[in-house]
Amino acid sequence: MIDIVNIAPMDIEKESFATITRELGDRQPPEELAPIVKRVIHTTADFDYADTLYFSPGVVEQAKAAIRAGAHIVTDTTMALSGINKKAAARFGCKADCFIADADVAAEAKTRGVTRALVSMEKAARLGEPVIFAIGNAPTALIRIRELMDAGELAPKLVIGVPVGFVNVVASKELIIASGAPCIVARGRKGGSNVAACIVNALLYQLDETRGQ
Amino acid sequence: MIDIVNIAPMDIEKESFATITRELGDRQPPEELAPIVKRVIHTTADFDYADTLYFSPGVVEQAKAAIRAGAHIVTDTTMALSGINKKAAARFGCKADCFIADADVAAEAKTRGVTRALVSMEKAARLGEPVIFAIGNAPTALIRIRELMDAGELAPKLVIGVPVGFVNVVASKELIIASGAPCIVARGRKGGSNVAACIVNALLYQLDETRGQ
Repeated sequence: MIDIVNIAPMDIEKESFATITRELGDRQPPEELAPIVKRVIHTTADFDYADTLYFSPGVVEQAKAAIRAGAHIVTDTTMALSGINKKAAARFGCKADCFIADADVAAEAKTRGVTRALVSMEKAARLGEPVIFAIGNAPTALIRIRELMDAGELAPKLVIGVPVGFVNVVASKELIIASGAPCIVARGRKGGSNVAACIVNALLYQLDETRGQ
Repeated sequence: MIDIVNIAPMDIEKESFATITRELGDRQPPEELAPIVKRVIHTTADFDYADTLYFSPGVVEQAKAAIRAGAHIVTDTTMALSGINKKAAARFGCKADCFIADADVAAEAKTRGVTRALVSMEKAARLGEPVIFAIGNAPTALIRIRELMDAGELAPKLVIGVPVGFVNVVASKELIIASGAPCIVARGRKGGSNVAACIVNALLYQLDETRGQ
């Protein structure tokens, strides 16, 4: 027999978070970080993230301040952009964009023999706006962010560094951690556009809850 | 020292697949399934999928035939839709859609107290077209697909059943496996919109390679 539980749509997420909390056992994250860690596990069903998520000191408060100030959210994939709750972001005046499919980005990447993700980060840096980067796919995006920081051309409000993969992924994440930028990073190979979007949403929802209190 | 490898964009995927093949060791999937299994691991960096992906007998050939015949690809999330290579799909005359954000779907879900995902599957069934379902989020979508099949109102060409989560996810996938529909299912809790899109793309790319031969 296949056992389907009868549950109202609005209760599914609540029940899921209760299961995650229960199964985390003695690996409960610090209170401030718990909503983010648990939402990533909710998005992936992968408890590895309880151990691999790195948060720079004070990053949650910095991220909240950036959102309240209406920072521009920039992703490296249209899929991450698609997963971000744009209605929740708009409540704080935060626009969300991805430049990877822009014609100018594609043309320049081809000419220079680099990834479109890299060029799309340069485009974001040229905005001259406070930016929250949500990077779920391209290590080259993280590497370029670090280079632009080192050159004094970029000071990100937050870098969500969670690309997934096998080539330069681990190293690119360590570059961001070592940069001193406010960051949330999934150490190791795992991550993804879904994880990047989920972390943005977790931050937005935390602020919404604060408002409701 | 953080070690970044210098690699051309076009070589990153090739190198990643070589790493995956190497690390799979003696867990290599059957030749016909390997491009799908490896692309899912490429998308998630999670080797669990080497064990959890279920393929109904003959499904790859059935899926390819459905694509060649221009089946309508329907997802349960805009994120999965966003991850599907629409250019590759269009080459076979395959449209890709997600009905979850449609106003009529939202209104009906609210009235009936069910998920929008469920109602969006009914909308897909009413198309009366050959449909490939790519479900990466909502167990309720899979459950409704099974119910519509049992009622004789739906005969999907393929069900990609890879929702992620903690409530009814495992059971909903088993319902699809037991239905007899051509299906590719990630058994257990893991999956996601990224995985759903990735399986669609893996099928599309296999057909493109055939064409190139």
